Amino acid sequence: MASSPAGTTDPPLVDTEFDRATAVRRLDDGTFALEVDAGFTVGPKPNGGYLLAAAVRAAGDALAAEGSAHRDALAATAHYLWAPDPGPATIEVEVLRVGRGASQARATISQGDRRCVDLTFTMGTLPDGPDAPPATWSALAPFDVAPIEDCFRVPADPPGGKFKVSIMDRSDLRLDPDTMQWAFGPASGRGELRGWISFADGRPTDPLGLLFFLDALPPATFDIARSGWVPTLSLTTYLWARPAPGPLRIRQRVQQVAAGRVDEVCELWDADDRLVGQATQLAAIRFDDDAAVVPYPR
Amino acid sequence: MASSPAGTTDPPLVDTEFDRATAVRRLDDGTFALEVDAGFTVGPKPNGGYLLAAAVRAAGDALAAEGSAHRDALAATAHYLWAPDPGPATIEVEVLRVGRGASQARATISQGDRRCVDLTFTMGTLPDGPDAPPATWSALAPFDVAPIEDCFRVPADPPGGKFKVSIMDRSDLRLDPDTMQWAFGPASGRGELRGWISFADGRPTDPLGLLFFLDALPPATFDIARSGWVPTLSLTTYLWARPAPGPLRIRQRVQQVAAGRVDEVCELWDADDRLVGQATQLAAIRFDDDAAVVPYPR
Repeated sequence: MASSPAGTTDPPLVDTEFDRATAVRRLDDGTFALEVDAGFTVGPKPNGGYLLAAAVRAAGDALAAEGSAHRDALAATAHYLWAPDPGPATIEVEVLRVGRGASQARATISQGDRRCVDLTFTMGTLPDGPDAPPATWSALAPFDVAPIEDCFRVPADPPGGKFKVSIMDRSDLRLDPDTMQWAFGPASGRGELRGWISFADGRPTDPLGLLFFLDALPPATFDIARSGWVPTLSLTTYLWARPAPGPLRIRQRVQQVAAGRVDEVCELWDADDRLVGQATQLAAIRFDDDAAVVPYPR
Repeated sequence: MASSPAGTTDPPLVDTEFDRATAVRRLDDGTFALEVDAGFTVGPKPNGGYLLAAAVRAAGDALAAEGSAHRDALAATAHYLWAPDPGPATIEVEVLRVGRGASQARATISQGDRRCVDLTFTMGTLPDGPDAPPATWSALAPFDVAPIEDCFRVPADPPGGKFKVSIMDRSDLRLDPDTMQWAFGPASGRGELRGWISFADGRPTDPLGLLFFLDALPPATFDIARSGWVPTLSLTTYLWARPAPGPLRIRQRVQQVAAGRVDEVCELWDADDRLVGQATQLAAIRFDDDAAVVPYPR
């Protein structure tokens, strides 16, 4: 699709709820308008991966306006300062460098006077599924996950949940029962969730969808001990390729909890057994006062 | 140490080569002057972890000027746009939010008209070594590394090397011979380096030192196949605690090489068996045309 004249922006490639919710409109002052969508929330607040995807869309548009075709976030980091509410928000993008193989941009999502998310991107063009060569070298291997029909669809209104997790109506997340015992009894202490993920409305997963999925799982700390909300401080994503069609395998693992913080890593594998995306995040955590922390089994 | 009047900055806590090389001086316009040190280089260009440490120092000073005591980078990300040369550079810091438990700032390192490094930080105060509680939970365990006296000190002028790696005169890096066979013969294909690291001049390792060490190792891709320079696109670090005295155990591992990019993870463990710092980075890589890529042993 050709880049569009100033003052407008490219229409969504596909008219789905995710494309509408991440749509950004370039304003005359060069900033972008985003309508934070109430359907992409956890409780009352928007999901961090959803906000990241919207900001990458704005960064791609800003690069297109400078003649660059780089629309994919090879590496992206978001620092979350303040959770915005559903409703109008502004994305300010600054193009830092336009390069041949990669370009860099930074962005800020604000609502009113409040800065909500600060982001930095290394942008480029991901190899396309069928044409993409396999990894040159990898120490990682696809993990075991139960067949999708044996997995547990995570509902937006989990039994006993204190709030609605609307993103579970947008994504179709099926967790391996082997990693779900914490939902029905004591946690296993492994700190790991595995399953399958796709868009609930059948939208194909593109690189923007990968960004959303990389932050869409429940905290894997639920498999260690009960806690309240686990707000992300910093999320970093790397994307490797546009995924092959079909549901993706996803795994989220806790690495360490210390001093009120937790780090988790996430992997997304496609139907061709390729690692297509990864994330690492640092979040704040406070286990419930009466929660017993189940140690990692060694 | 009390924060200092505008126009000056705190003197280094310890007068060592690392403290002098990372010293920043606040100018009247609110930016910071940095003298990029020729001793913290790989070939002609400064090391990325060294630049990160200098920028965190500036961010801590900028936060102090706003009444915050947050000087430690709990989470930091640097995107490298252009490698500066040794000599004068400018660091521009923008404080995004001053909070109770954590604050956020972004920074840019420029040289002349060129933007060189774009950084974002979540800042706070790390627990101090002896008083720090152990990790609440961890899936990670300290790795095996040969006794320090059996390890191989990495020289600044490696035999057959094409350029001087000056940071190896600043850090005392001892690599486990088990991870060094690539230096003397064929690579092992494991893509992993393990060893011990400390400052060569005996300076104690503080949180700024951790940032430098997290990017100080040779590319672990040397254990896969020969390549030229492996320039970092994006580096993300998490710090957990001020380390106990003594050399730190360090491990750098390659996770995947695909589409001309590589991601590597790094861990730093202290003498009390605590994970004190981690990093993940995405870099550009091109193996030598005649290099055979040794697959990961499974």
